[in-house]
Amino acid sequence: MTTREDLAKWDAQDPLAPLRDLFDLPAGTIYLDGNSLGALPRATAARVQEVVTREWGAGLIGSWNSAGWIDLPHRVGDKIARLVGAGPGELVVADSTSVNVYKVLKAALAIAAADAPGRNVILSERTNFPTDLYVAQSVAREHGCELVLIEPDEDPADRLDDRVAVLMLTHVNYRTGRMWDMAGITAQAHERGIVTVWDLCHSAGAVPVDLTGAAADFAIGCGYKFLNGGPGSPAYVWVSPRHADRFAQPLSGWMGHAAPFAFTTDYEPAPGIARYVSGTPAVIGTAALECGVDTLLAAEPYGGMVALREKSLALTRLFADLVDERVSGFDIESPRDDEQRGSQVSLTRPEGAYAIVQALIARGVIGDFRAGQSGLPDILRFGVTPLYTRFVDVWDSVEHLRQVMESDEWRDERFSQRLAVT
Amino acid sequence: MTTREDLAKWDAQDPLAPLRDLFDLPAGTIYLDGNSLGALPRATAARVQEVVTREWGAGLIGSWNSAGWIDLPHRVGDKIARLVGAGPGELVVADSTSVNVYKVLKAALAIAAADAPGRNVILSERTNFPTDLYVAQSVAREHGCELVLIEPDEDPADRLDDRVAVLMLTHVNYRTGRMWDMAGITAQAHERGIVTVWDLCHSAGAVPVDLTGAAADFAIGCGYKFLNGGPGSPAYVWVSPRHADRFAQPLSGWMGHAAPFAFTTDYEPAPGIARYVSGTPAVIGTAALECGVDTLLAAEPYGGMVALREKSLALTRLFADLVDERVSGFDIESPRDDEQRGSQVSLTRPEGAYAIVQALIARGVIGDFRAGQSGLPDILRFGVTPLYTRFVDVWDSVEHLRQVMESDEWRDERFSQRLAVT
Repeated sequence: MTTREDLAKWDAQDPLAPLRDLFDLPAGTIYLDGNSLGALPRATAARVQEVVTREWGAGLIGSWNSAGWIDLPHRVGDKIARLVGAGPGELVVADSTSVNVYKVLKAALAIAAADAPGRNVILSERTNFPTDLYVAQSVAREHGCELVLIEPDEDPADRLDDRVAVLMLTHVNYRTGRMWDMAGITAQAHERGIVTVWDLCHSAGAVPVDLTGAAADFAIGCGYKFLNGGPGSPAYVWVSPRHADRFAQPLSGWMGHAAPFAFTTDYEPAPGIARYVSGTPAVIGTAALECGVDTLLAAEPYGGMVALREKSLALTRLFADLVDERVSGFDIESPRDDEQRGSQVSLTRPEGAYAIVQALIARGVIGDFRAGQSGLPDILRFGVTPLYTRFVDVWDSVEHLRQVMESDEWRDERFSQRLAVT
Repeated sequence: MTTREDLAKWDAQDPLAPLRDLFDLPAGTIYLDGNSLGALPRATAARVQEVVTREWGAGLIGSWNSAGWIDLPHRVGDKIARLVGAGPGELVVADSTSVNVYKVLKAALAIAAADAPGRNVILSERTNFPTDLYVAQSVAREHGCELVLIEPDEDPADRLDDRVAVLMLTHVNYRTGRMWDMAGITAQAHERGIVTVWDLCHSAGAVPVDLTGAAADFAIGCGYKFLNGGPGSPAYVWVSPRHADRFAQPLSGWMGHAAPFAFTTDYEPAPGIARYVSGTPAVIGTAALECGVDTLLAAEPYGGMVALREKSLALTRLFADLVDERVSGFDIESPRDDEQRGSQVSLTRPEGAYAIVQALIARGVIGDFRAGQSGLPDILRFGVTPLYTRFVDVWDSVEHLRQVMESDEWRDERFSQRLAVT
């Protein structure tokens, strides 16, 4: 049996351990919700202050040139590209995940209409993150398409027929942490003439992603989870260079124009990924996002995403094993197979998921609750972030869970009072 | 003839003068570009720091509830509403101006199709800000509509026929500062069954706006000009309560859902303006925007927008008069009629506009250059912000302009080198 002392040794020997110092983590808290909002990097506060006081306050409008604001979406985009197997100039920071889903779905339908005309199905999965489904419903309605949802236990390959124009999947599922085989599924889709859209919200910065190697078509993702960009951070969008110049996405704001400062009357899309920018870039938020992305790039001398992945799998494996050994009454919803598991462990129970999460939060162990979707059970989510999660944190979290259950503490009615945001 | 000493007396007697202390303005600079990027409010740096370190860093994910992040787009929206004659719960902070133009144009077309079917023209004006035109081109293409552009000297009323579904105008023109009669034009449009979209980018916080009084239909605007929200600040969107529940805008992200945290599979739009939110709100940027809006609300005890407008008109009138009196070779493009002039003065000249602006910037007088659009001339723009612009600033700016012209200093070739952002 593993002991806490064993895990303290693991931490002491962990070559990634120094990376924890890149973060400002509150004392007395074990933060297992970096899959919902990444923790604050130590560099961010000073950098944001610099943007506000020096660049905006002193530099004023001139900082669009002198502080490089105009290039910021591309500069930070190039950094994110390194985390997801994309090339420089292929990925840009812009807008929110929801808005970017809209852009790439419209573009993917246009590419599909050109290359494999007459198809009218967008295929996705029922437990995809709701915003992806909501936007897909809207796009399907606008284009006279049908949104078809497979069940989470179905193999998408079985549904890739010649009615399907676009397959949109989230690489790592937000509920269970289950990870799709991006390269294999993309290849199967392409064999059938289907364009792929990958949502990387729970995978970029959490698992190695290789968009180029997978020959993917479109990808989007958010900045505030594993990229540590801060609350409501701008999102990003990637388009394969095969497709980038073939379609002008419809949110054709001036910053995606070939020459924004020519102030011409007619829209002319910029070449490449720049056309996926719409309005004026969110400078402060993008600067904060850069600090977050830098925390992941700081792992490059330590082995980068491969080393982070190895630690992440060890942490989640440990979490699941300790729950098995030490706590009863929970099912582990996340795949036990390393190949299929992202950077989280999700538990289910017939009752009490919400209250148990709240009782843990009261003890300083911060995971989160996600309401059951489509008849599936409520879940307790525990995300690990190998940049700052320690092995003893996993031990202590499971120990708190054990105590919360054994003491029936979670049945205290204050833990059942629903907050606005869960 | 007015002298600088006279103007120093005007400043000394100006009841709004103390409001200048709400801003951190760099020494040695006369900032006349608040119509492009508002100056830094003194409160912003500390508030942003609080959001980053205390709310995000210490509060982590819990701040969605405890720091009220989830309500932020509505709380700040309600404050902006006070500046534009809208009611609480009618206006929300979200996305960029460009993205919001897309939402409201789609919604306006849907309302028009329901109330006055069979129309297929979106009417706008050729020198509208390009992003509005670019997005309108995209929406027109998607809907099989025609985008018809009147010339800047035409009266929109002459073109409001029964082919027109939607009239989209910018209340104050970004080039000339010319202001439309919102109430009059809206009434004329409504008589002909036409839905109106008003862009308030250059009017909110600069001139009194009364959306309710004008019975307007849709409005959008940006946060980083006269609202002083910072570079790339989130924008906002207002929909008349007559229309808000009649159409679900297509960027149907989860934060516009009636119950985002129910994680249901199907989109159900939230009631009212909340459905115009798409993705997760940009918390840091919205908090900065709130500080900017607060600088305008701080003028309420001094007479609010009415008093600010009076000072703004006095400043722009003075600017135009001093240019007339003291500098030769410029035409004043902005209306001399107070009723028709926003909060800026635009000058034109047959040559050298760009270099003259750069020469002024080198002297610490920051205006900006806008390239000629649609055969119209290049312009030199000088925006006044009555919260912080002083009468002596206007004198000194015109004096610098006089010296730049008399000395031929602007012909130095370094001032002709084009920067990426103009």
